Amino acid sequence: MNKISAVIKKNMLQEIKLNNGFTRNEISAHMHLRFPTVAKFTQALVNEGWIIESDAQDSSGGRKPRVLQINPKVVSGIGIDLGINSIRLVLCDLSGEISFRQEYKIKGSVPVVNQLKAIIKEVTGKFRKIAIKCIGIGSNGFVNYLSGRSIYSTHMAGLDDIPLKDIIEKEFGIYTAVDDISRVFAFAESQPGARAPKTDFVYIFLDSGIGCGIFLDGKLLRGDIGVSGEIGHIKVSDNGIRCGCGNTGCLETYASTISIVRQVKEAIAQGVHCSLSGKSGISIDDIIKAAREGDKLALSVMTEAAEHVGKVCANVLNIFGIKSIVIGGKLKEAGELVLGPVRRIVKEQSLGLLANETEIKASSLNDDGGAVGAGLLALNSLFDSGEIYKIKSIRGEK
Amino acid sequence: MNKISAVIKKNMLQEIKLNNGFTRNEISAHMHLRFPTVAKFTQALVNEGWIIESDAQDSSGGRKPRVLQINPKVVSGIGIDLGINSIRLVLCDLSGEISFRQEYKIKGSVPVVNQLKAIIKEVTGKFRKIAIKCIGIGSNGFVNYLSGRSIYSTHMAGLDDIPLKDIIEKEFGIYTAVDDISRVFAFAESQPGARAPKTDFVYIFLDSGIGCGIFLDGKLLRGDIGVSGEIGHIKVSDNGIRCGCGNTGCLETYASTISIVRQVKEAIAQGVHCSLSGKSGISIDDIIKAAREGDKLALSVMTEAAEHVGKVCANVLNIFGIKSIVIGGKLKEAGELVLGPVRRIVKEQSLGLLANETEIKASSLNDDGGAVGAGLLALNSLFDSGEIYKIKSIRGEK
Repeated sequence: MNKISAVIKKNMLQEIKLNNGFTRNEISAHMHLRFPTVAKFTQALVNEGWIIESDAQDSSGGRKPRVLQINPKVVSGIGIDLGINSIRLVLCDLSGEISFRQEYKIKGSVPVVNQLKAIIKEVTGKFRKIAIKCIGIGSNGFVNYLSGRSIYSTHMAGLDDIPLKDIIEKEFGIYTAVDDISRVFAFAESQPGARAPKTDFVYIFLDSGIGCGIFLDGKLLRGDIGVSGEIGHIKVSDNGIRCGCGNTGCLETYASTISIVRQVKEAIAQGVHCSLSGKSGISIDDIIKAAREGDKLALSVMTEAAEHVGKVCANVLNIFGIKSIVIGGKLKEAGELVLGPVRRIVKEQSLGLLANETEIKASSLNDDGGAVGAGLLALNSLFDSGEIYKIKSIRGEK
Repeated sequence: MNKISAVIKKNMLQEIKLNNGFTRNEISAHMHLRFPTVAKFTQALVNEGWIIESDAQDSSGGRKPRVLQINPKVVSGIGIDLGINSIRLVLCDLSGEISFRQEYKIKGSVPVVNQLKAIIKEVTGKFRKIAIKCIGIGSNGFVNYLSGRSIYSTHMAGLDDIPLKDIIEKEFGIYTAVDDISRVFAFAESQPGARAPKTDFVYIFLDSGIGCGIFLDGKLLRGDIGVSGEIGHIKVSDNGIRCGCGNTGCLETYASTISIVRQVKEAIAQGVHCSLSGKSGISIDDIIKAAREGDKLALSVMTEAAEHVGKVCANVLNIFGIKSIVIGGKLKEAGELVLGPVRRIVKEQSLGLLANETEIKASSLNDDGGAVGAGLLALNSLFDSGEIYKIKSIRGEK
């Protein structure tokens, strides 16, 4: 392949990727190339396995133009959800299809970065025949996406000022993307079916930590600092307790799963009646179940938590004027127990002309969403940054 | 000009505009056109008055490549700031240079839309020899940018559910853009010198109303609803009074110039000592002056207002992770009286890792900023939407 051909192929792949599928006529118009030239290069890309042909979804009659799309199986990536208790890993392709998944308990005795390396080494060793071309990591704590550094985590040791992207890239020699766990969940939520329009939304992640991913104009919002969507640290009360971030009254101190469990335990210790009294190791699942069954304490703590989330969602709606707010993370499992108060407070505290236009719903992602989102983020970054075209072979070892 | 030539010229102008200036080599590379073709078409565009040549700002030695830029004088637009007491109008070119300005008092007896029409008619009549190709309006109240409708204003009659864009376009037959006054100020703030990078920022407009314009990746953030940046209606207190929007405790009820004047007057009426006691028609200028001179009431109302602004800025910073927050509108004239408390609260209530990276400063725009921003918004939309290329003559009447 000579140099000019390589540039044309690269641009063609980028156009096809960017537009989520393109017909040969569309490529011709967008790239100012004659149709025979387009036909020649697209055939080469099909032969090389980069793109596949499928029927167009609509047609104005006559022979249907064939839509060319990136072959989702052309590359695979490792996606990792670095939680506070466990590490989830998936191996997935560009369509998010998972070919391998595993969950590993985090051992307190070993630095978490070393555990990460060992797990990735095990998986890359096991799948030598698959073209694993990138690694995506969604981490708990504060992460700077632009520098690829973990800043710190309020929940676990070993993540203070760590150049995570550089460490993993150096160890494994492949492109690595590192982002906040909320943002990789949002990225997974943003991946629609083929040729569907990508609508704007804000993804509110309610879990052991709280954050959000803001998806606008087909991409995640990234502040120029590299850290954004930190709604868990919006002050929601003047009388709140101190948060791990150093401030007081943060949303996380009321509405993270950890804070909900803490509040219920504290109330029980103070003698408040609760169906969970006397139970050892009360979990968020126990509290959601108790609230569903009408336990007053569980219900009141859950409702107050959701109301604080609603306050922040009202702010988000006033600021973004967005038609879709998606609630995800562990707390979405509480369903209307959380969605109800959130919707009520948004109605009360945001502009009516916005509240009437927005839909607040639960995410349909499962627990693998973070790991898949991290893998997809890395795979898509490979294409968007042009890194993919530097890869000589797109096939694994024979 | 045949059809293909017209398309190439149009694309060339868009590339030059989008990149804020381009050399012939850059055009050749970006548009996949041979250099002689580029030379031919750029010469035609220079001859027709669309583009001008200037020296490049940097060079690696040898003959300097010439940078081609859109001729800022090629079209002019009318920019209007529709305030609650007056209408400001400017005639400006693509560089924001003003060739005419006028301020008109709003008469309560005449529908405001009729006053707008009369003013525009007067100006277009006066400047027949200038190519006025568009009208931009920055309005008080709630405005849907996407539909071009005024939804309502809490401050003036005659703006309820008005298709302002359609009305003005129909009356004058030229492209019209309608947006919120905060957003057109933000747009004016975003216009840098030639070839300067456009950095991200949030523009906080503190005036008779409060809103913000969010400038990311070279453009204003627009929610998919068409209304965004409505921070004036973020709830900042549980004990607040009712706002014109229907909710209670909104930022505007504490920190708009109208609310500040109201609070000072109410306190004086309740017997609180103030250097402005007995003065009729207390204005925001009087209060800023009194606060500067150490008047306790004026200072306390101004400080509380600024602290509430600080709360909202802390939220904005946590959400956007942005390096620049710009304070504009009437209240920026209070300088450190406002900036001081805003900076202090942002330090206290946003994540330290973000607060350390952000700069909060006063805007350098003057009172014409809104009208100029509205004109620039319309002029830029003309280019970005491709509408400009439908205009046959770019010159006014001879």
